[in-house]
Amino acid sequence: MAGNSFGTLFRFTTWGESHGPAVGVVVDGVPSRLPLSEADIQHHLDRRRPGQSRFTTQRREPDTVRILSGVFEGQTTGSPIGLHIDNQDQRSKDYGDIARTFRPGHADYTYWAKYGIRDYRGGGRSSARETACRVAAGAVARIVLGPSVRIRGALVQIGPHAVDRDRWDWERVDDNPFFCPDPQTADRWADYLDGVRRRGSSVGAVVEVVAEGVPAGWGDPIYDKLDGDLARAMMTINAVKGVEIGAGFAAAALSGEDNADEMSPAPDGSVQFASNHAGGVLGGISTGQPVVVRFAVKPTSSILVPRRSVDVDGAATEVVTRGRHDPCVGIRAVPVGEAMMACVLADHQMRHRALSGGTN
Amino acid sequence: MAGNSFGTLFRFTTWGESHGPAVGVVVDGVPSRLPLSEADIQHHLDRRRPGQSRFTTQRREPDTVRILSGVFEGQTTGSPIGLHIDNQDQRSKDYGDIARTFRPGHADYTYWAKYGIRDYRGGGRSSARETACRVAAGAVARIVLGPSVRIRGALVQIGPHAVDRDRWDWERVDDNPFFCPDPQTADRWADYLDGVRRRGSSVGAVVEVVAEGVPAGWGDPIYDKLDGDLARAMMTINAVKGVEIGAGFAAAALSGEDNADEMSPAPDGSVQFASNHAGGVLGGISTGQPVVVRFAVKPTSSILVPRRSVDVDGAATEVVTRGRHDPCVGIRAVPVGEAMMACVLADHQMRHRALSGGTN
Amino acid sequence: MAGNSFGTLFRFTTWGESHGPAVGVVVDGVPSRLPLSEADIQHHLDRRRPGQSRFTTQRREPDTVRILSGVFEGQTTGSPIGLHIDNQDQRSKDYGDIARTFRPGHADYTYWAKYGIRDYRGGGRSSARETACRVAAGAVARIVLGPSVRIRGALVQIGPHAVDRDRWDWERVDDNPFFCPDPQTADRWADYLDGVRRRGSSVGAVVEVVAEGVPAGWGDPIYDKLDGDLARAMMTINAVKGVEIGAGFAAAALSGEDNADEMSPAPDGSVQFASNHAGGVLGGISTGQPVVVRFAVKPTSSILVPRRSVDVDGAATEVVTRGRHDPCVGIRAVPVGEAMMACVLADHQMRHRALSGGTN
Amino acid sequence: MAGNSFGTLFRFTTWGESHGPAVGVVVDGVPSRLPLSEADIQHHLDRRRPGQSRFTTQRREPDTVRILSGVFEGQTTGSPIGLHIDNQDQRSKDYGDIARTFRPGHADYTYWAKYGIRDYRGGGRSSARETACRVAAGAVARIVLGPSVRIRGALVQIGPHAVDRDRWDWERVDDNPFFCPDPQTADRWADYLDGVRRRGSSVGAVVEVVAEGVPAGWGDPIYDKLDGDLARAMMTINAVKGVEIGAGFAAAALSGEDNADEMSPAPDGSVQFASNHAGGVLGGISTGQPVVVRFAVKPTSSILVPRRSVDVDGAATEVVTRGRHDPCVGIRAVPVGEAMMACVLADHQMRHRALSGGTN
Repeated sequence: MAGNSFGTLFRFTTWGESHGPAVGVVVDGVPSRLPLSEADIQHHLDRRRPGQSRFTTQRREPDTVRILSGVFEGQTTGSPIGLHIDNQDQRSKDYGDIARTFRPGHADYTYWAKYGIRDYRGGGRSSARETACRVAAGAVARIVLGPSVRIRGALVQIGPHAVDRDRWDWERVDDNPFFCPDPQTADRWADYLDGVRRRGSSVGAVVEVVAEGVPAGWGDPIYDKLDGDLARAMMTINAVKGVEIGAGFAAAALSGEDNADEMSPAPDGSVQFASNHAGGVLGGISTGQPVVVRFAVKPTSSILVPRRSVDVDGAATEVVTRGRHDPCVGIRAVPVGEAMMACVLADHQMRHRALSGGTN
Repeated sequence: MAGNSFGTLFRFTTWGESHGPAVGVVVDGVPSRLPLSEADIQHHLDRRRPGQSRFTTQRREPDTVRILSGVFEGQTTGSPIGLHIDNQDQRSKDYGDIARTFRPGHADYTYWAKYGIRDYRGGGRSSARETACRVAAGAVARIVLGPSVRIRGALVQIGPHAVDRDRWDWERVDDNPFFCPDPQTADRWADYLDGVRRRGSSVGAVVEVVAEGVPAGWGDPIYDKLDGDLARAMMTINAVKGVEIGAGFAAAALSGEDNADEMSPAPDGSVQFASNHAGGVLGGISTGQPVVVRFAVKPTSSILVPRRSVDVDGAATEVVTRGRHDPCVGIRAVPVGEAMMACVLADHQMRHRALSGGTN
Repeated sequence: MAGNSFGTLFRFTTWGESHGPAVGVVVDGVPSRLPLSEADIQHHLDRRRPGQSRFTTQRREPDTVRILSGVFEGQTTGSPIGLHIDNQDQRSKDYGDIARTFRPGHADYTYWAKYGIRDYRGGGRSSARETACRVAAGAVARIVLGPSVRIRGALVQIGPHAVDRDRWDWERVDDNPFFCPDPQTADRWADYLDGVRRRGSSVGAVVEVVAEGVPAGWGDPIYDKLDGDLARAMMTINAVKGVEIGAGFAAAALSGEDNADEMSPAPDGSVQFASNHAGGVLGGISTGQPVVVRFAVKPTSSILVPRRSVDVDGAATEVVTRGRHDPCVGIRAVPVGEAMMACVLADHQMRHRALSGGTN
Repeated sequence: MAGNSFGTLFRFTTWGESHGPAVGVVVDGVPSRLPLSEADIQHHLDRRRPGQSRFTTQRREPDTVRILSGVFEGQTTGSPIGLHIDNQDQRSKDYGDIARTFRPGHADYTYWAKYGIRDYRGGGRSSARETACRVAAGAVARIVLGPSVRIRGALVQIGPHAVDRDRWDWERVDDNPFFCPDPQTADRWADYLDGVRRRGSSVGAVVEVVAEGVPAGWGDPIYDKLDGDLARAMMTINAVKGVEIGAGFAAAALSGEDNADEMSPAPDGSVQFASNHAGGVLGGISTGQPVVVRFAVKPTSSILVPRRSVDVDGAATEVVTRGRHDPCVGIRAVPVGEAMMACVLADHQMRHRALSGGTN
């Protein structure tokens, strides 16, 4: 089954393995005459790039993107945009010892069960390296959306330690190696993660992505709801185990009167909401409020702590993963979550335009 | 945009409004020569049917399904299966007062913003009545999956009150009006919900659906991952605001060694797992363990407590919803969640078969 | 595989068998606030209806359509439009003798080979009765396209007898039982077909469909070209064996200078073409000229002339089809071809609007 | 709209322009553990490669393919296969004079009308160079189909000159520069085309593609019929204006008894057919006979004969195309038609397997 594409009108397809010659993405369905340069994309790739602090994998990849098609004289032509990112730092020897064993909690075993063959070098196709392609596609999606839609992400929890939302400051997100909107929590995380790293362990996280400027009316009931597509988008990011919109799981404990966001006339004649438990989506359609998504990232299973497992012959073994890994893969998931939000919104912007005939 | 279909190979399309003459579903892609009768479907519809206890809406609908095509002499023919459910108890007068106002927290406003027109009778297309079609499709999906895959759902939380998992007994789920696997909690919920109902309020819930017997290997990386499709499937159910797989959001707080499910050789030569934090899915592919999904259902916004809102002219107003409603819509979401699980699995069973050439 | 849907944004799904209780279609992706009534659809169904002359099957079907969803107070709501047509004149006894034999040239054998079961009553799903649903969907598509796009079809050949294009008069198409634009040829066809019918034989035909008012710019290279989608659309009509655009197969014998349609400035500032060998499509995109499609319909294999065949046990047999049939199924294919043209164009209008943000 | 992908389960996506740095294709949905090397693909690319005789364009492109992903240790892994073909001989100066004018009969004008921008170098995305990617994808599709399905193509008409089918010899197809199965006709074509070339003109052609070994049962009624998908597949090849299956347009002039292929028991217990007017497809499903498709290729509009046209400002002009071009683009369409046949069949093989659970 051809599962390497995402989106309907704004649609991208990715290819490439962690330790192959390159990874890439074809972005199809992009309207013409939009300005697009490699720098527009590189900016976002640089935010996801590994090796930028001691809290992410030490693999050194410049992640330099090349545009091979679909752009002419600085503008999109409406033809598919072929993007390439060469792999450079593929130390395959690091991974030789996992060729015949399955890391518990990793896709090693399921790829083997499904395909009967596995490119074990660096996790092959199941590596988070694939997310570079998502970020590249997301950069194009932002161009499609235009400046009126603003998408930002932040890490809101590492292990058991959540940010203090009263101290939330978007301006500080890029000031620390965690995309943390609360500098005090960032300091605490640094200490905590140093301990995790020293133990050869890893830890999970929660990412929040917010899109402002989405007009009311995007999203297609019943099965192509905006939140349904966002849930799929985020859940397909490596290591994600949960997704919620607005109040999310907390809504289960609310009463109807507390959960329903009251509406009133806004001074400008539009509608304003007293709260945003809905996370900007009702009935699968955007309300005009910020679209708010959170997703949980599990701790990576590539750790130095020995774990019991089996090998390809079914024999018992013990696994220790010595390669270069992220103690908290959730950190680098922030720009990936932003990218997926951008791709879903660009798709729904175009879908809505097809229906409405308008420019939104 | 055509958003009323779900699935790729096993694919269904629904139509119909809450107070129109009927709702229906076309189930396409069903293999031939499977035994299928209306009773097979009715059984599941009856579990979702309203009016069976004081804790669900008092609308009286027999929800009788008719098979109009795709079955010949008791067997599926490979042609699309057209299913109809007539609407009978459409007391439209109940809803006349919401024709011009938007219930806060409801899709009233977003449908209006998107379409500029709204079938306000009983919520029209945004009504949970659409979920009867999902349940009917799910019944067909179960036939496609066959008896080796067992799908069961339960309500695990109402408002702030969760079940005690130590008392979990699947056998008791159908003994109480809540699909509760823990009879003691069911009693507690009855008292609690009586209070909610008397206050004219409503409350949220959490549903858990478990599929046993799914072999390792189903699911298509990268964007058609089994858990990605499940997340979309559940998030598109009315009022759902969060979805998680296995340990879900709790995984964020776990260490890598605690989260990774250790593997060992099973006595029968297969692989066994020491735990199931993964919820039966790794890298988007089933592990062979039970597939475990949970989703949060918000409290309905159709309540007797007055809430501030606006009308179609943008003027301030107050809304009280007097119609027949569920104090806890999460209850009837249990068979709906089971149905969506069945549909996702049937689709992926067929996708996998296309790839592998096998019978799984 | 779920093959009973057509289109991407404007998308319809059909169900139902020739001798089941009903056939139907769900039309999804229709923009809201378009006026739509059953009469709008019935008008086109009546043109396809059987039994209107001695040259079509004598099956008596009123083909009365009912709108079951998606329309509220006379306007589309953006929700899926469920349409039903009851089957009334199912004389199943006529077909009892083909339950165990395969008509040569008919889908009897291939359905059996594929599905291992077959609803033999009147051809079941493979019956041309399914095309009533196409016509209903096409009527909705015309509403989506609006009055600026005009779609007309005509029969241009029956057996070896083609119309004289110098006598082409669109006004006369509905004056004869053949949708023939040339009354003299219509008279000739009447005589010819009477002979065919008396012999218990059947004969093929060629249909031409022309869409005027399609602006330049519709169609999506490379694989969703306007002509590619038209080719698929027409080829999936029962009994169609060939499709061509503009000059079609005759283009093979032309020189480049004769085939290329010269362009010049039009008085109104637009572009005018000296000819239309392209049939209104270049590079998969509409040119602004009329879109011209022709398709060949084979003679039906349901004939009184005995033919050699096999039965379900593989034994030799002889087949004579005594049921009610069309001596020239191509006649009733005219409104079906128009409908498919309308559906393809409505889909591409919306696709183009998604890209361009305009109203075309 | 994202129109650069083809297929459902076996699905490929192409990118790249005629004079960009490269063209490429991502082939997704390929089953794992199939042997695949660059040589397997190169073999087919070499048959399509330009510059191999005086009858095709003199552009010199080695068309060397590189596999960048999806293959590990010589076997497919089930991950997307990224294929690259560098462009080498992009003499852009040849095309400078068409930057501001539209070649009549070419996609120049429609791309401009649709996108408002155009990569005019060598036709950009609308160049037949894109078909190299189809051929590469088709080579992979052949591996998926395996040796039991044999796909061969031939040129059966150039200009008004058709082959003599009594002299058809598949063994001779690769002996001449035309893929002509009849050497005497090939000689005649050489003379004829020399004249066309000297006049600076071009001429059309008809290609026939035959697939043997396709079992009965492939194809999905109603809208995903095997012949519907083949029609779309062939019609989307550059310059194709007509597609027919089996007897095709000639079927219009046949009687029902002449057209219907009689069946009888075969000595081996299967069914044999007395003829193949159906071209191997009935009701959209394969019959087990050879699948026979023909398509008409128009003469290229890139000719030395001056033609009237307009420029981007709408002013009248005259166009002469001096670049390197094929006097008969139909020749190189033969391997492209074979490739599309292979892709459609591989997709339907997998679709059928999903339904049937078998290995066909």
